[in-house]
Amino acid sequence: MASWIDIPDDSDFSLQNLPYGIFSTDDTQARPGVAVGQHVLDLQVLAKEGAFDGFDFDVTVLQQTTLNAFAALGRGPQSVVRERLQALLIKQTELGDVLRDNHSLRNKALIPLSSVKLHLPMAIGSYTDFFVGLHHAEICASVLKPGATIEQLCPSFYSLPVAYNGRASSVVVSDASFHRPHGQFPVDGKLVSGPSRKLDFEVEFACLIGEGNSMGEPIDVNSAEDHIFGFVLMNDWSARDIQMWEASLLGPLSGKSFCTTISPWVVPPEALEPFRVAPKKMPRTLLEYLVEKKELSAYDIPIRAMLGAGGQSHKIAVCNTNNVIFSFAQMIAQHTRNGCPLQTGDLMGTGTLSGPERANAGCFLEQSRNGTEPYELLAEKHGAGSVHRAFLEDNDEVTFTAQTLGSSDKVGFGSCSGIVLPAF
Amino acid sequence: MASWIDIPDDSDFSLQNLPYGIFSTDDTQARPGVAVGQHVLDLQVLAKEGAFDGFDFDVTVLQQTTLNAFAALGRGPQSVVRERLQALLIKQTELGDVLRDNHSLRNKALIPLSSVKLHLPMAIGSYTDFFVGLHHAEICASVLKPGATIEQLCPSFYSLPVAYNGRASSVVVSDASFHRPHGQFPVDGKLVSGPSRKLDFEVEFACLIGEGNSMGEPIDVNSAEDHIFGFVLMNDWSARDIQMWEASLLGPLSGKSFCTTISPWVVPPEALEPFRVAPKKMPRTLLEYLVEKKELSAYDIPIRAMLGAGGQSHKIAVCNTNNVIFSFAQMIAQHTRNGCPLQTGDLMGTGTLSGPERANAGCFLEQSRNGTEPYELLAEKHGAGSVHRAFLEDNDEVTFTAQTLGSSDKVGFGSCSGIVLPAF
Repeated sequence: MASWIDIPDDSDFSLQNLPYGIFSTDDTQARPGVAVGQHVLDLQVLAKEGAFDGFDFDVTVLQQTTLNAFAALGRGPQSVVRERLQALLIKQTELGDVLRDNHSLRNKALIPLSSVKLHLPMAIGSYTDFFVGLHHAEICASVLKPGATIEQLCPSFYSLPVAYNGRASSVVVSDASFHRPHGQFPVDGKLVSGPSRKLDFEVEFACLIGEGNSMGEPIDVNSAEDHIFGFVLMNDWSARDIQMWEASLLGPLSGKSFCTTISPWVVPPEALEPFRVAPKKMPRTLLEYLVEKKELSAYDIPIRAMLGAGGQSHKIAVCNTNNVIFSFAQMIAQHTRNGCPLQTGDLMGTGTLSGPERANAGCFLEQSRNGTEPYELLAEKHGAGSVHRAFLEDNDEVTFTAQTLGSSDKVGFGSCSGIVLPAF
Repeated sequence: MASWIDIPDDSDFSLQNLPYGIFSTDDTQARPGVAVGQHVLDLQVLAKEGAFDGFDFDVTVLQQTTLNAFAALGRGPQSVVRERLQALLIKQTELGDVLRDNHSLRNKALIPLSSVKLHLPMAIGSYTDFFVGLHHAEICASVLKPGATIEQLCPSFYSLPVAYNGRASSVVVSDASFHRPHGQFPVDGKLVSGPSRKLDFEVEFACLIGEGNSMGEPIDVNSAEDHIFGFVLMNDWSARDIQMWEASLLGPLSGKSFCTTISPWVVPPEALEPFRVAPKKMPRTLLEYLVEKKELSAYDIPIRAMLGAGGQSHKIAVCNTNNVIFSFAQMIAQHTRNGCPLQTGDLMGTGTLSGPERANAGCFLEQSRNGTEPYELLAEKHGAGSVHRAFLEDNDEVTFTAQTLGSSDKVGFGSCSGIVLPAF
């Protein structure tokens, strides 16, 4: 789909994408926008100027400081807005007078991406982190307990999408830095308190919930996708030493709750339709409530993880959203099976999306074998050398990017980035 | 402290208490109130009528549908409001003209408890459930793995207050019923999906956070109590079969996230000052960041658990808030040690508060030894027989009440109650 706006071929933000975010410029209030090419389209301005007049919903949902009210409307109104945006932006638009040829509105509504500040797109009520990455689970089991299978450590791993509740209050948007966390852990058999020595990243894919469900009313796996507002990249920063010491019985808490970073643009489900694949086939018979009619319920999107250090960008790994044994629909069905209410703005991550090789490892726990084999990360720029990492060092910057494959109409997420500041 | 309002000797709501809640009558909007004797004092009406005029904060915080804005003010303004309320209500009040002798205001502001509906007192952002009950942990370890100690199952148990993130969206106020949850678990070696067969309650004590902290700024253990707005009773309903199957690696999720009940009245820290005790003394040396200057950092309050079944009330157990090896201050210090931000309205539970005997068991997992020894619960009414319970049956009602010991100025919590409806 060609637009009358200049969209570079390699842009994350083609007309196929049109992801939603919350942005501000200078001292203006944060408001909803859509990324297109190298611009943000200001939805508040469009709504005020009547671009969505005649639609069957209150357009003030597009004039708020989070996307929650818009997300809560559900998929119907969201599809209508998306279609209208595509109709406004496509080269051969029949609505040219609304935006393309209305230069005063264009000047107000189209803002260069380089000049905006991006905010957390939604107020996140609850955050659940799943553990449905096949290779991550299998490799972590063998690293943490040599000879062990994941099924020995987690007997339910293949039969349900297992998960833990994450900490919603420490979810931040890309580019927010954080301090290396303090915690308690054993060193050489002695318990100490201090900055984590095993700080790690985790490459994840996540969805944000649109319409929720009432308590006591599970969501059927075959209608679960209707509750997804959109998708983001996620870095589930992890302090392995803190996590291993605390998590033996009740799972991770302080090893994770210091920071979780998401990418700023919420990519709508429609944008990813052409990129569907099946989750990993497993030799198993699922219980009925997890059986999906739809076969292609996962996505094929490579996620690149890069390390910024010493002024250079180094390749860490390429993971993929398809390295999962359960889909988002199955995660939602499992989460609500007991009657648990999901709410608009809830965040659900896949867990780490490693592939089978070290070049596809989605965390240093895997890549450096829990720090025992520091891994060489080559600089992206040819000839600029390399660094070795067991775990993250102070001032390291980790950046995830992801873009769909294929020659045109690319869908990407912008970047999911964060810098490790020294301990407070 | 005697009041000009009639407060029965055995009332939970003496002038020493003055707990905050959110209530409504008929079709009126929910608003803040304070329980006193058999009445609710309407804080919205008092604020509008100028009872807090001249105070150094915006009294519209007392005119909202949750207590969050008032709680966020911090301990200073809350103490001032408490002192004013006591001054208004005490028999020999010097402020008689404001309320006592102002019959028109009295008629508007004093509402019989029996005629109000109580709501969730705060919008709960995040909910963290700790596991600091000594006897619960030790007994559960021996029940679930005969011969095992809690330290073998959870090596960090004695050295830090361990916890998991709970599910905030399924926290409800007393008297909300819920359906027996569905889930996945093995029965006789075969995996099934269906209603839980091991539904349980858990007797807990919890605090609600007033002022939060910024990300990256830990709260010192010796100022941590300043962040507590108040206390409630909590029933952390648990489906043991679902929990045991899912929780081997990442802790509990679906085994807990279907419902958590709290009592409606938030008891201020000042109310519990006379009832302080030390947490359980343990043979251990704590790391510096968990060492409190204050010795009496726990509370001595018995919590009674009752079972309503077949039209009779049966005694389950009497637990106590003092069965803990860490205080709330230590829980808060641990939670924020890594920089995790707490927010106004966050809920933190102690975990199950069992004593050492079966008559003090705070859950059926302990009392019936994971269902293998159904336990006899005597009817409260003499001669009305007994029932046996391995776990909860449909239509069972579980009620917790708690009242401080001593002859006068009792402090109680109202009731924390819920009914198990049949599976959906």
